[in-house]
Amino acid sequence: MKHLLITFFGILFLSVMPSKAEDGSRLWLRQADNAQAKVNIPRSSPTLNIAAEELQKAWKGLPIDLVLKKDKTLQADGFRISYGKEKVTLTSPTEVGLLYGAYHLLRGQDTQPEARPSAEEAEVHNPAYTLRILNHWDNLDRTVERGYAGRSLWNWEELPQTASPRYEAYARANASIGINGTVLNNVNASPKILTEEYLKKVKALADIFRPYGLRVYLSVNFASPMALDSLPTADPLNKEVIRWWKNKAKEIYRLIPDFGGFLVKANSEGQPGPCDFGRTHADGANMLADVLKPYKGIVMWRAFVYSPSDADRAKQAYLEFEPLDGQFRKNVIIQIKNGPIDFQPREPYSPLFGAMPQTTLMAEFQITQEYLGHSNHLAYLAPMWKEFFEYVSPASLKAIAGVTNIGTDTNWCGHPLAQANWYAFGRLAWNPSLTSEEIADEWLKQTVYKEPLEAILKGKATDVQGWKATHAQLIRLMTESREAVVNYMMPLGLHHIFAWGHHYGPEPWCTIPNARPDWLPSYYHQADKTGLGFDRSAQGSNATGQYPEELAKQWNDLNTCPEKFLLWFHHVPWTHRMKSGQTLWDELCHYYDKGVRQVRDFQQVWDRAEAYIDPQTFSDVQCRLKTQVRDAVWWKDACLLYFQEFSAMPIPYDVERPIHNLKDLQKVHLPINNYVCPSPELLNQNR
Amino acid sequence: MKHLLITFFGILFLSVMPSKAEDGSRLWLRQADNAQAKVNIPRSSPTLNIAAEELQKAWKGLPIDLVLKKDKTLQADGFRISYGKEKVTLTSPTEVGLLYGAYHLLRGQDTQPEARPSAEEAEVHNPAYTLRILNHWDNLDRTVERGYAGRSLWNWEELPQTASPRYEAYARANASIGINGTVLNNVNASPKILTEEYLKKVKALADIFRPYGLRVYLSVNFASPMALDSLPTADPLNKEVIRWWKNKAKEIYRLIPDFGGFLVKANSEGQPGPCDFGRTHADGANMLADVLKPYKGIVMWRAFVYSPSDADRAKQAYLEFEPLDGQFRKNVIIQIKNGPIDFQPREPYSPLFGAMPQTTLMAEFQITQEYLGHSNHLAYLAPMWKEFFEYVSPASLKAIAGVTNIGTDTNWCGHPLAQANWYAFGRLAWNPSLTSEEIADEWLKQTVYKEPLEAILKGKATDVQGWKATHAQLIRLMTESREAVVNYMMPLGLHHIFAWGHHYGPEPWCTIPNARPDWLPSYYHQADKTGLGFDRSAQGSNATGQYPEELAKQWNDLNTCPEKFLLWFHHVPWTHRMKSGQTLWDELCHYYDKGVRQVRDFQQVWDRAEAYIDPQTFSDVQCRLKTQVRDAVWWKDACLLYFQEFSAMPIPYDVERPIHNLKDLQKVHLPINNYVCPSPELLNQNR
Repeated sequence: MKHLLITFFGILFLSVMPSKAEDGSRLWLRQADNAQAKVNIPRSSPTLNIAAEELQKAWKGLPIDLVLKKDKTLQADGFRISYGKEKVTLTSPTEVGLLYGAYHLLRGQDTQPEARPSAEEAEVHNPAYTLRILNHWDNLDRTVERGYAGRSLWNWEELPQTASPRYEAYARANASIGINGTVLNNVNASPKILTEEYLKKVKALADIFRPYGLRVYLSVNFASPMALDSLPTADPLNKEVIRWWKNKAKEIYRLIPDFGGFLVKANSEGQPGPCDFGRTHADGANMLADVLKPYKGIVMWRAFVYSPSDADRAKQAYLEFEPLDGQFRKNVIIQIKNGPIDFQPREPYSPLFGAMPQTTLMAEFQITQEYLGHSNHLAYLAPMWKEFFEYVSPASLKAIAGVTNIGTDTNWCGHPLAQANWYAFGRLAWNPSLTSEEIADEWLKQTVYKEPLEAILKGKATDVQGWKATHAQLIRLMTESREAVVNYMMPLGLHHIFAWGHHYGPEPWCTIPNARPDWLPSYYHQADKTGLGFDRSAQGSNATGQYPEELAKQWNDLNTCPEKFLLWFHHVPWTHRMKSGQTLWDELCHYYDKGVRQVRDFQQVWDRAEAYIDPQTFSDVQCRLKTQVRDAVWWKDACLLYFQEFSAMPIPYDVERPIHNLKDLQKVHLPINNYVCPSPELLNQNR
Repeated sequence: MKHLLITFFGILFLSVMPSKAEDGSRLWLRQADNAQAKVNIPRSSPTLNIAAEELQKAWKGLPIDLVLKKDKTLQADGFRISYGKEKVTLTSPTEVGLLYGAYHLLRGQDTQPEARPSAEEAEVHNPAYTLRILNHWDNLDRTVERGYAGRSLWNWEELPQTASPRYEAYARANASIGINGTVLNNVNASPKILTEEYLKKVKALADIFRPYGLRVYLSVNFASPMALDSLPTADPLNKEVIRWWKNKAKEIYRLIPDFGGFLVKANSEGQPGPCDFGRTHADGANMLADVLKPYKGIVMWRAFVYSPSDADRAKQAYLEFEPLDGQFRKNVIIQIKNGPIDFQPREPYSPLFGAMPQTTLMAEFQITQEYLGHSNHLAYLAPMWKEFFEYVSPASLKAIAGVTNIGTDTNWCGHPLAQANWYAFGRLAWNPSLTSEEIADEWLKQTVYKEPLEAILKGKATDVQGWKATHAQLIRLMTESREAVVNYMMPLGLHHIFAWGHHYGPEPWCTIPNARPDWLPSYYHQADKTGLGFDRSAQGSNATGQYPEELAKQWNDLNTCPEKFLLWFHHVPWTHRMKSGQTLWDELCHYYDKGVRQVRDFQQVWDRAEAYIDPQTFSDVQCRLKTQVRDAVWWKDACLLYFQEFSAMPIPYDVERPIHNLKDLQKVHLPINNYVCPSPELLNQNR
């Protein structure tokens, strides 16, 4: 081992980042850099140098030894921390494990400064998943499908010659929370990403990310051989096609020896796939898997498919994939969205989980808030993902992917608090048993306050009791926020009643001539004079039949179905008595009203916290909460006034009265597309 | 006497009015017309025929004798009702007194059907004022200055050939509440109104109005001799000028023998007047009074004057008119706005009242809601006028004028409930001791419900107890409504912080280069780092010195000044302790918040009343209340966020948080003028 004294190339970007105003660019990594800790590393290497540098600058505890050592209790990325009387020993079988351990120590220092472990204690930390991966839906023209924080981070035009300091900051942020893979481009993939020109750009990014243990993956267009080299087919059983992919794999691995593999959206929403050539998803995935196998690459094959038929869209992925169980290669992972439809504010889990015991599966979460108010609304998503894990055992999955909310905005994610979703995704992918509150506690302490926690607790500039009360309220605000969105958008199992084209505002009345029925809200809400909701019970589409028997039984019955899923699984009479004793209609009204009141409460909690919060973060969030309240009222009025046309029942008088007229709301059309979060001005002018 | 059996020309318009939907066109005159009562009149005459016809159609009690008879207890318009065992005798010295008596009987039947007086009782009713007059600010191009209910009723182009059935309906409505005069045209008067062409049109209206006891008056332009006949001057002491006016008076009275007289806005806001020729207001008014005297005409001379100086605008009318006390002819009445500035949501009374003991005075109220949300906001104004009478004894005045809110809208006044202000004005001009609640009770019973009161009380179609509770709530809604407007617009004595150009929305920050200082809000609110409000105490402009000594003493002292006038008379420190114990800033915030909550409560009260209210009225008011809530929040946010820039104090946390940003609000400019009430669409698009 040698003692590390000098600065390496590693974290130069610290000086690039502005340090005076807290503009969000530093994310949750706001440590002071003047600690001068003593750190021993076993040898010099890019990864070990970064670990040492991070600790040296910020670690305030005992000297640290970093030790590379195999250990039966440790997985490849795992690490052990032994607290001695005079030093701390960090052990891992891999360099990146030591890097993760370094970030773990610093996180502990930032979030639990009073809870320094005593001597002779040891901790072991292993990740729940070997693959913890971000999916960027970034297009090569730098638009981001469902991106609401500026343009794509990847400046393809300037790569590979010029590298933004943001690339390394991005890798560091991911390493700090254990994320070890990134799919750089949109699943609606341009074939161009596999050209030599672009692969060189990808290599440049991979080189920057490598020291941080972050592997690069690509989304590929299944018809790439046809698009790039004019092959007459992309049939996965065709020899020319297989040869093409083999050559392409060789080319990729020559540039990027640790290239992770492919993500494929096939035969879905117009993307090409093996079915176009009379083959199955398994045929397609296995061909690519075979091609990548020599390099230890993997194929992540998405199960997000549905055809424009009249059948229940919620059933289609299961119908298409479940029969293929057992037919996939070992290096294929079927990537399944958490719910059976599409990232709604609340869905039951997708029945494919648990239905393919012979197949490796991974879950796809959406970090970007396509259906949760974009970057205007506060919606902390850890509770949504934790809810998923209540039904799907974390151990049943091989990996977790998250569709990111990252862009070129200075604060990375648009809404200052939306960083918490990137953070929470990483933390849960490492340890799904963490609670939403624990993660919010960590993130808030590291990110939003004027002072570091240690300074706060010393109480020189801060009223400590006041801060503690505020912190508890902010944790409550975070953990309630997604449920508030559900309440004012789509309570009780309602889903997909969004506006045509952008998924921001309400349009339960939307009709578009000749549109696919399953692209229209009425397909999902099924409102009529008798009631509301989609009958997916045994009497209806029998989507419940795709679930394990016990659940199916419970969900089939209107009286035992959890009310949060009620309108997902049942067409319920307006006068149905809910558990509260109210009718469905009254309960619906009260949920919408509750959502509005919750956001008003969030405003109060936030405003009361002003004294403790960084000023720029404070005013940014304050502004966005104003928009969120107005949007919540918009949602409430739109949905209640529209559904009232069917229920013909009065809105209960303890519900705040509508301030909009349905006819006016029905004229609202926001001129935005998939890449844009509407500004307050645009919202004001258009509704 | 002869028994009246047949229909006269009188009230043919009854059949013109639609009878199925309650579109507001019938106002408070919704009686069934199938009573076939026995009515004796002393002789046939247009007025008596109307009285008989009205009773015959709608009176359900004993037969009625109408008797023309002098009676020491009765003034000219007064009447006596004697209830005998077999008949009712209605007595008056004048025909119009009998007509008023008829409407009185029908009103009693409509509003107190259970309280029919027993035999041998008698009632005497005399008006408080001999002159109960509407002022139309109607221009000859049919725009209405500060009119928010369509265009002017007077179709000058089609007059005198064609008469709208509305003219007679208008006269009848006025007669039903005792209004006996109307000034047809705007005080910013076009000289053209005195041309032969227009006088013939005026005559046509006067002929229609005459049977209803409604006299016609005109606003005149003081420079008419110059404008119409190229006289070189309009100097009131010039012989040619005097001769011109004498000839004009002769011409008018030849056409309209009972012409009422002139209303004059002179030397105010650009209007010509005697001061232009070195004469006084008294010189000008007296010249016209002398000209009209032979015909028993009168001159109403407005005291609404203020020059573009730096002195306190609130003092200027007093400074200009008080010295002229005793110099006016007996047939001149000085018409003074209720407050010293200009029809604000709340003003102290004008100090001119009580300051001119040798002069005949009348009050000018504004029925149209120039400063109270136009026809979008519910603001029942009886409480405002009653508040005026708390300070100015009704007996000290000769007459009352009201600037009307009437236009071509089907429901006459724009907001369905704004009819109540026309009604209340008439009722108070007859009897200022009526309470706001009594008048609201009368008007609601006659106007808004699905059924006539008698049918409601029979309980065939109506839950009587439910109706009674609802009616009490609606009276509360009406009587609280103006105070709610004060609270969310300008509480605690704030005034004139309206937007430039239209007086609808808030613009306390408004600055216009080279504008008269007293046309800008900052002149009135005087917000600065130390506090808020206009110091008109003895230490300031000493406007308090214009009031009686006892009031001046009370109002001069920050601690005894009524808090509702606080910021009118004092520049008050933000930290000043109010009677509640709160600081001024906190109290201000709570008043704005209260205003918003009150309008939300009005929505609830209204929605709860749905079962009892005529459907068309219900939904129209429901829509307008939505706009009012949004406007109230707009006002609250605009004023609090703006004044917070001076107070630098936090908005108390129990106040609902703002949903707008000050910078956005400061960009709002509604593209409307004096004649337009902004539609919800226009408001949505512009803020």
